Amino acid sequence: MKNEIIKFDNPPKIISASSVVGKKEHDGPLGKLFDIVDETDAFNQDTWEKSESEMQRLAVKHVMEKVALKDDDIDALFAGDLTNQCVSSNYGLLNFDIPFFGLYGACSTAAEGLLLSSLTVGFGIFNKTVTVTSSHNCSAERQFRYPLEYGGQHTPTSQWTVTGSGAYIVSKDGKGPIISEVLPGKTIDRGITDINNMGAAMAPAAIDTLTRFFQQSKTQPQDYDLITTGDLGYEGHRIVKELMLGKGFDMGKQYNDCGLMIYDRKKQDMHAGGSGCGCSAVVFASHIYNELCSGKLKNILFLGTGALMSPSSVQQGQSIPGIAHLLHIKGE
Amino acid sequence: MKNEIIKFDNPPKIISASSVVGKKEHDGPLGKLFDIVDETDAFNQDTWEKSESEMQRLAVKHVMEKVALKDDDIDALFAGDLTNQCVSSNYGLLNFDIPFFGLYGACSTAAEGLLLSSLTVGFGIFNKTVTVTSSHNCSAERQFRYPLEYGGQHTPTSQWTVTGSGAYIVSKDGKGPIISEVLPGKTIDRGITDINNMGAAMAPAAIDTLTRFFQQSKTQPQDYDLITTGDLGYEGHRIVKELMLGKGFDMGKQYNDCGLMIYDRKKQDMHAGGSGCGCSAVVFASHIYNELCSGKLKNILFLGTGALMSPSSVQQGQSIPGIAHLLHIKGE
Repeated sequence: MKNEIIKFDNPPKIISASSVVGKKEHDGPLGKLFDIVDETDAFNQDTWEKSESEMQRLAVKHVMEKVALKDDDIDALFAGDLTNQCVSSNYGLLNFDIPFFGLYGACSTAAEGLLLSSLTVGFGIFNKTVTVTSSHNCSAERQFRYPLEYGGQHTPTSQWTVTGSGAYIVSKDGKGPIISEVLPGKTIDRGITDINNMGAAMAPAAIDTLTRFFQQSKTQPQDYDLITTGDLGYEGHRIVKELMLGKGFDMGKQYNDCGLMIYDRKKQDMHAGGSGCGCSAVVFASHIYNELCSGKLKNILFLGTGALMSPSSVQQGQSIPGIAHLLHIKGE
Repeated sequence: MKNEIIKFDNPPKIISASSVVGKKEHDGPLGKLFDIVDETDAFNQDTWEKSESEMQRLAVKHVMEKVALKDDDIDALFAGDLTNQCVSSNYGLLNFDIPFFGLYGACSTAAEGLLLSSLTVGFGIFNKTVTVTSSHNCSAERQFRYPLEYGGQHTPTSQWTVTGSGAYIVSKDGKGPIISEVLPGKTIDRGITDINNMGAAMAPAAIDTLTRFFQQSKTQPQDYDLITTGDLGYEGHRIVKELMLGKGFDMGKQYNDCGLMIYDRKKQDMHAGGSGCGCSAVVFASHIYNELCSGKLKNILFLGTGALMSPSSVQQGQSIPGIAHLLHIKGE
């Protein structure tokens, strides 16, 4: 089998991370760990789309301020989101005088951006990059489902789009968790057509990437402190555990999902868990990043998972392809 | 001034290029140069969105067949398009068992993909990548403007979205034009709000990138056989010429635009010229690539230009940001 894992001779470091969230994320179990919170979800803007752009602007501004870096110190921005034509990124980052690469990886965008950042920094192309992504529950609801005013009901398998933006600085030098190797995802379609069960649609891509990674790296799930997918929620998480076991990989207790970590299932009624570009972005930028920095987590796999459909493609009867990009990250 | 140009010690080569187009492109002055044509624009599919996906599939299949390469020989796919959530790429490329990076750079995507391909190949991360992008007039019209059935009129400054897909293989080894250096674009917004004048909206980004390139490379427009922007059309092309002259750079006769080359202004009524992700993609993959291979063109600048708005952002009163990525390419 061709080895698709990319290792770094000079592993890049994540020297800064920042998170911006709304009310429901602040009310959740990780609430106190986020950097910037607006309980109104509006971030002083007059449309939800502009609120999402503002979250990205705040996340990037804050991630640079934390390590006292300016525009001139950053060689590239890798950014994307879920809105049509990725306008949250396009408008949110206009203030920054930094070369810009727009990405679309659906909810896998945080991992796709970190992966491209680690490649370009790890191989000496850039010294420092910023990766940023976001989702906003209200802009996502009206674009992918119904406007909030309609008051649509959600099915139990549906997930709650996280209102949040996470940003990171990947750097050649400095202090921070190390990206030691990466495995880019492939698009995988197993025929799932239920738009209210994105976890099931994305799970096959996570399984494909995890299986390729364990086989090519000759490691087992037990070799890692934490393996986390981005936003498979309760449905997708269960599917990955079951199907990976069928392939001979016991994912064990160290397998978690950012969509399960961000809300409290008992106190908050978030159906099958959190989702959206912002979900893995803010959970990684807060809880996971902190534990990697403190040494509590030493050796983890972080998978960004994305569902690559659009409302039109589903209306036209097409099934939902998924993708999952993997990063192997080590604590300081 | 910080030097943002990225040079290659081992310059990557574009060893293959392919183009897929519809009727109007086939009727134009470059018609005979395109590889695959469907005069119905449908490509045997039952929706225009699926037709666009099929064009991408055909372009990638053909670009690999031209140099007898298989999925296993390609390390990464860089792909994107104009449809919401980039579904033309997501669905069109499902058949290929190749790691996938989704991009959104609007009409600059061909250049953005070539730029990321050249970075990852030029710095030894990958041996070979495929870059692909597309647009389809009918899927673009109903998404960005009105469904075709409405029969909406276009203003004279509006451009015609090209039905086309272009694909390229960037490789460490082999024969083909050389990418000698690149300059990533920045997002630039000069307050243009007219959705029917995308050339004017994108021109400031082209001017920013060209000015940075000439200043940092210490070259002049006269040092190149051809300088071409992606899809500024007659309006944007004129603006770039005038404003560059104001900055002390006479763009001269060697400055052209892919949106001016693809249609015949006298015989075909395409208003201000061609546009869309497919415009620069197919003009570069046919006419320009052929002339670089034959030695007729020896030293060119290729700029992908993109307008980074969405219908929602324009309806919400926001102006239209642009971006322009530049590649300096030399004939064999």
